[in-house]
Amino acid sequence: MAEQGLFKIKDDWNLEIPVIDENQIVNYGSNLLCGNGYLGYRGTLEEWGKEQYKACIVTDTYDMADGKWRELSNAPDGLYARVTIDGKNLAHDPGSLDLKTKLNFNYKYGIFERSTLSNRKENSYKIYSQRFASYDNLHLIANQYILSGVKDSDVVKIKIGIEGDVWDLNGTHLKNFSSDYDSEKNILYIKAETVEEEIELVTALSFKIDSKIKNIAVDEKEKALFLIIEVDNTDKKEIKLQRNLIIYSSNDTKNPLKKALEDAENSLEFTYDELLEKHKDKWDQKWEIADIEIKGNLMDQLALRFNLYHNIIATPTHSEYLPIGARGLSCQAYQGAAFWDQEIFNLPMFMYTDLDSAKNILKYRYHTLDGARKKAKDLGYDGAFYAWISGKSGKELCPSFFFKDVISGRKIRNHFNDWQIHVSPDISYSIWKYYLATDDINFISKYGAEILFEIARFIHSRVHFNQYKGQYEVIRLLGPDEYHENVDNNAFTNYQCRFALKIALYFYFKLKNESTGQLEKIVDKIDLNESEITAWQEIKEKIYLPKPDPENKLIEQFDGYFDLEDTTAEVLRSRLIDKSEYWGWPNGVAVFTQVIKQADVIQLFTLHDIFSEDVITANYDYYEKRTQHGSSLSPSQYAVVAARLGRSKEAYRYFTKSAYIDLKSSNKAVSGGTFIGGVHTAAAGGVWQVLINGFAGMILNKDGLLFKPNLPEEWDHIKWKLIYKKAKLKFKLTRDEFLISSDKANKRDIEFKVFNKKYIIEPGEKLKISL
Amino acid sequence: MAEQGLFKIKDDWNLEIPVIDENQIVNYGSNLLCGNGYLGYRGTLEEWGKEQYKACIVTDTYDMADGKWRELSNAPDGLYARVTIDGKNLAHDPGSLDLKTKLNFNYKYGIFERSTLSNRKENSYKIYSQRFASYDNLHLIANQYILSGVKDSDVVKIKIGIEGDVWDLNGTHLKNFSSDYDSEKNILYIKAETVEEEIELVTALSFKIDSKIKNIAVDEKEKALFLIIEVDNTDKKEIKLQRNLIIYSSNDTKNPLKKALEDAENSLEFTYDELLEKHKDKWDQKWEIADIEIKGNLMDQLALRFNLYHNIIATPTHSEYLPIGARGLSCQAYQGAAFWDQEIFNLPMFMYTDLDSAKNILKYRYHTLDGARKKAKDLGYDGAFYAWISGKSGKELCPSFFFKDVISGRKIRNHFNDWQIHVSPDISYSIWKYYLATDDINFISKYGAEILFEIARFIHSRVHFNQYKGQYEVIRLLGPDEYHENVDNNAFTNYQCRFALKIALYFYFKLKNESTGQLEKIVDKIDLNESEITAWQEIKEKIYLPKPDPENKLIEQFDGYFDLEDTTAEVLRSRLIDKSEYWGWPNGVAVFTQVIKQADVIQLFTLHDIFSEDVITANYDYYEKRTQHGSSLSPSQYAVVAARLGRSKEAYRYFTKSAYIDLKSSNKAVSGGTFIGGVHTAAAGGVWQVLINGFAGMILNKDGLLFKPNLPEEWDHIKWKLIYKKAKLKFKLTRDEFLISSDKANKRDIEFKVFNKKYIIEPGEKLKISL
Ligand SMILES: [Ca+2]
Ligand SMILES: [Ca+2]
Repeated sequence: MAEQGLFKIKDDWNLEIPVIDENQIVNYGSNLLCGNGYLGYRGTLEEWGKEQYKACIVTDTYDMADGKWRELSNAPDGLYARVTIDGKNLAHDPGSLDLKTKLNFNYKYGIFERSTLSNRKENSYKIYSQRFASYDNLHLIANQYILSGVKDSDVVKIKIGIEGDVWDLNGTHLKNFSSDYDSEKNILYIKAETVEEEIELVTALSFKIDSKIKNIAVDEKEKALFLIIEVDNTDKKEIKLQRNLIIYSSNDTKNPLKKALEDAENSLEFTYDELLEKHKDKWDQKWEIADIEIKGNLMDQLALRFNLYHNIIATPTHSEYLPIGARGLSCQAYQGAAFWDQEIFNLPMFMYTDLDSAKNILKYRYHTLDGARKKAKDLGYDGAFYAWISGKSGKELCPSFFFKDVISGRKIRNHFNDWQIHVSPDISYSIWKYYLATDDINFISKYGAEILFEIARFIHSRVHFNQYKGQYEVIRLLGPDEYHENVDNNAFTNYQCRFALKIALYFYFKLKNESTGQLEKIVDKIDLNESEITAWQEIKEKIYLPKPDPENKLIEQFDGYFDLEDTTAEVLRSRLIDKSEYWGWPNGVAVFTQVIKQADVIQLFTLHDIFSEDVITANYDYYEKRTQHGSSLSPSQYAVVAARLGRSKEAYRYFTKSAYIDLKSSNKAVSGGTFIGGVHTAAAGGVWQVLINGFAGMILNKDGLLFKPNLPEEWDHIKWKLIYKKAKLKFKLTRDEFLISSDKANKRDIEFKVFNKKYIIEPGEKLKISL
Repeated sequence: MAEQGLFKIKDDWNLEIPVIDENQIVNYGSNLLCGNGYLGYRGTLEEWGKEQYKACIVTDTYDMADGKWRELSNAPDGLYARVTIDGKNLAHDPGSLDLKTKLNFNYKYGIFERSTLSNRKENSYKIYSQRFASYDNLHLIANQYILSGVKDSDVVKIKIGIEGDVWDLNGTHLKNFSSDYDSEKNILYIKAETVEEEIELVTALSFKIDSKIKNIAVDEKEKALFLIIEVDNTDKKEIKLQRNLIIYSSNDTKNPLKKALEDAENSLEFTYDELLEKHKDKWDQKWEIADIEIKGNLMDQLALRFNLYHNIIATPTHSEYLPIGARGLSCQAYQGAAFWDQEIFNLPMFMYTDLDSAKNILKYRYHTLDGARKKAKDLGYDGAFYAWISGKSGKELCPSFFFKDVISGRKIRNHFNDWQIHVSPDISYSIWKYYLATDDINFISKYGAEILFEIARFIHSRVHFNQYKGQYEVIRLLGPDEYHENVDNNAFTNYQCRFALKIALYFYFKLKNESTGQLEKIVDKIDLNESEITAWQEIKEKIYLPKPDPENKLIEQFDGYFDLEDTTAEVLRSRLIDKSEYWGWPNGVAVFTQVIKQADVIQLFTLHDIFSEDVITANYDYYEKRTQHGSSLSPSQYAVVAARLGRSKEAYRYFTKSAYIDLKSSNKAVSGGTFIGGVHTAAAGGVWQVLINGFAGMILNKDGLLFKPNLPEEWDHIKWKLIYKKAKLKFKLTRDEFLISSDKANKRDIEFKVFNKKYIIEPGEKLKISL
């Protein structure tokens, strides 16, 4: 029962907030999020509203209300509830001193619980409420709301309903509200539409109450519909309310209102507990493969599951047309859109634990090819240049003027949208890894190859030949380290570009040799010319790859990086004029220095197992000192590399940095005018990598599967499962042993290496390898 | 006797300041500068000091005192003089109300005159002083100083001497002062050395006084040496002082002190008038060719001569090792260093009026090849990348952080030094023009070819091949319009690069065919490889040249320019947060708009006669509206293009903008902490172009000499002379006629065209062509 600052560990799945800290409301909202990949309902109290960053973010509702930011919409809140006793609020409003509220969150099933105690009129009232976003019906959030401790003489009124005046980050997204209340069925709804795209969004609410109702008053507003229910509480100390919140948009179904009302009605057929059971079944299936057990540190165990949970609920696995948001569905920040995080951070876990979802994630890039083609064309290139910020269509959502110079107030022309090209080859890279992990050549020929060819095309049109040096160069880039815009030959980008060309060529010739006719289809569809293949080959051969210096083994992050001022993030902090100013382009404190935002050369090492240990060591030691970790993507990658270098203490330190980034956040809600809350989904995906690619040391490349396990001192063991080439494998890593068992239902032997030794495991077999 | 704001036109050579306006002191200093290409002595009163921006800037004294700006040094002031009568100052100090000072400047001989009247003690005193910087002895400034109106009873003391505490722009340049006074010879001196380069700088002063001297008191300070001369003025109403100021540096001669003392002594052998006569002879020789007569507007005539004078005195024609400063020798601003202005703005006048000087100007680029080679190499290129700001060595003097963000106080990384590459091909262009004007193949084989080849080499190493588009591109540039940094395929730069390659190839094959062995020498010296020649040919063929749009005839200034916000300089002015903020990179008001600092595409038209009139018209009309003329280089180029288009009203308007840029300046001395005074030498050179290339419409290209004369309405005629292929030609343009005569001493017939008609003129012949 360790206790840690803001939260308390109840057990290995449950986190408790013993007393609400009002400064942490924004973090509760994100950390205690109920979600299911379709929607995310923030961990807020029923009586709260937009001031407390309450939100229910719904996938596939992209809309631009302010002319600049296209983002997901926030649905009207159907779980609003507020109790009055004798006309006096029984609500945990800001500054309420006579109420005590405890929160609990269960990460196994995504259950949010609140219990509030009040001592009033010599009586003690209690509100207990529980909810979950169903994985059985993605449109449903079920809630049980119990008021207890009431006396006969109390006049108890419960106001429930749907509040459409919601919190929005950039502009107000909903308009044209209409609503109705069916008093026979106990169902009410609000229908609205988004301002730009005119997506219909319906929030329906059905409810049951286990007490007699004295009276129901309807309170209808332009954007809200409330019922004020006066309960007959004679001889009843407890009033129990079951509510089913249903959300549909016109992007889900033609008649979202009809579907919502049906679901609302249907769900009243079940008790709350029945709905919960169906939901739990789905999670049990997920955890069967996805869970990772850490023995030896309960807090780390809980934190790890926190991260696995959040990576899962952020991901719209129900669809192959939707991206994973960089803040998942925890808020509107980052527009509910995919960055390169999706492939490089979120996807790997699914690739080994949930193949269908992994495939959906990759298919999303297939379905957004036209957006990527358009972006390339608009910028004067060919092929597919994927959006830096990618919503449903794949069109670029990243505005040209991204940040603001807080000193002058002028907007800054950041070049995330046009110069940060590595997103395209990063996708090629992930397709290759997916293929290695699954042997899914069908996916390649149906979807992957077209993506790969179009990305190779883009690279072809983006590189320049330096005749003088006899090499292809990639000019004017941002690498992963975004503080340095406008750089040439960013090592990470150049290696990724070359790799993307290699993979495109590999599958081009593989499909050609297999003569299934599939290649011809693609060639025909995208007008691929033989001369392009020749060009890809030439560029692959002649693209400049910054090599480790023969003396000091360092790889220069980009041309001229080593000539920049060599200083530290601490020194730069002291140079800030305004704490909230951007450190990067064009004139921030980091721009002319070697201080970098995040892993960049180091990121290369986590992806490519082609560098010698002394090169990795030298670069790790060099870049680590110069990394600010201004991005949540950074610590997990340092952890993976440190673990692989056998530096388990450092690896563990970076593991905690990544795993607790949200759990231990004490950030304020808003900084420099920008909402900075929300779950760091890429960090969540990165934590899985720290465990599997770092501590278990798993590397998958063309030569096969390799483990270099290295258990941190803090732990006694780790246990996990993976699916590899359709085989279920179970692992356990202790201080001295590495245990692997292959499920007896598996249909094939699996080869792998542990350090330098080769093993083969048959279905049903268990291997115990001494370390 | 027109009168114009700050000045009065006395006649066609003389400008008068009837009453000193103290707010204009900085402009007087520059506009009334005495100079001779070796030194520049600002138009200041003898009794003034550093507070009044007094300076004597000396060539070849580059020194860095502040760690950032290497600039010319300011010599100790040897013309200091201050009179007291009965212990009371007779000096035009700021706020002196009982004195009236009139100034006169003669632009024919560069003579500065001051006369000051005072009514004091019922008597009227007068100081009259005259000086010139000798073209007979470049180290001499001669001065005649006359005090009149004194009474017998007046106790008259004249303090003369050398003040070493001088005005410096960036740091204090002089140290280790020593001084001496030889009371027998009446010679005193101060010797000092520059702080960085330890250049010895000697200021010597010899004097004669035509009155008896009662007493001389020596006032010696650390950095100064003064004599306080008490004059016996019995029966004398006038005291006449002749002074010879001599300046030498250790870059001029091994023992500058010895030389200075010799010159000081020798010059006492002559009267002031004798020294003046020798000086005038030199100027008469210059004007014999260089003068241009305008009939019909006296002020324009004077302004034109003002500009011719300043272009001449700014230019260190005595040396082939020194650059023309962008502010000449009028102050330390722009570091006394050459920009592209030298070739494109200053040089043309010399090319047709003073061949030796023109050759010296070009040889300077030969002698600075090593600096240009070093710059190229340091930046990862080959060949010669000339310094953006070029001093004696040709090493880059332009600091990386040039401007300051006045809002944040942070320095700005401007890329004049590394991205503004057109300076190199601009030099190639000028070598070609020099060759066309002179047939001087000797210069080409001895100096020009090596420059041309090294510039071609640089271009080869700087361009990139875009395999996808099948073209060479020039990426990451600043064109002449410096508000847009980091642009690709700036039309001006790309055309100039191609031209530079063409010229290099032309002379490569010409020298090869002539088989003089000279090519082999160069090839051997610079290790030129046949494969490089092939590469130049390929780049020349395939370099991307932004072509006029077939519909609207517009040439895009750089890739994407037309997509920028289309607005005006006026609108941008209203967006300024601080009036002194820089409009350009990285985040100034002009950066994301089509507003440009100066002629850019238009500059292309003044250099290359390859575009049709409708293209020039369309682009002139388009870009003119969007040009801020934030550079003094701009108006003259617009004037030339407007004149060639037959738009003589607009051409005249731009002529006046350029010709009066300094004469009518009402700028304050200092803006945003930066001294902004100084003569705009490029504008001075540009005015010559407006007359000759604009109104006379002279174009010289491979096909020969062409005139398209077009006299502005304001004038009755223009008369000028040119040297072309060693022949002296005289021209007169009236409203109806164009008259050309060839000097009878000429040794060849000269071919030329006027509009579309061909003419040949024999030595001694006169042609009258009706217009
Ligand atoms: Ca998806
Ligand atoms: Ca010179």
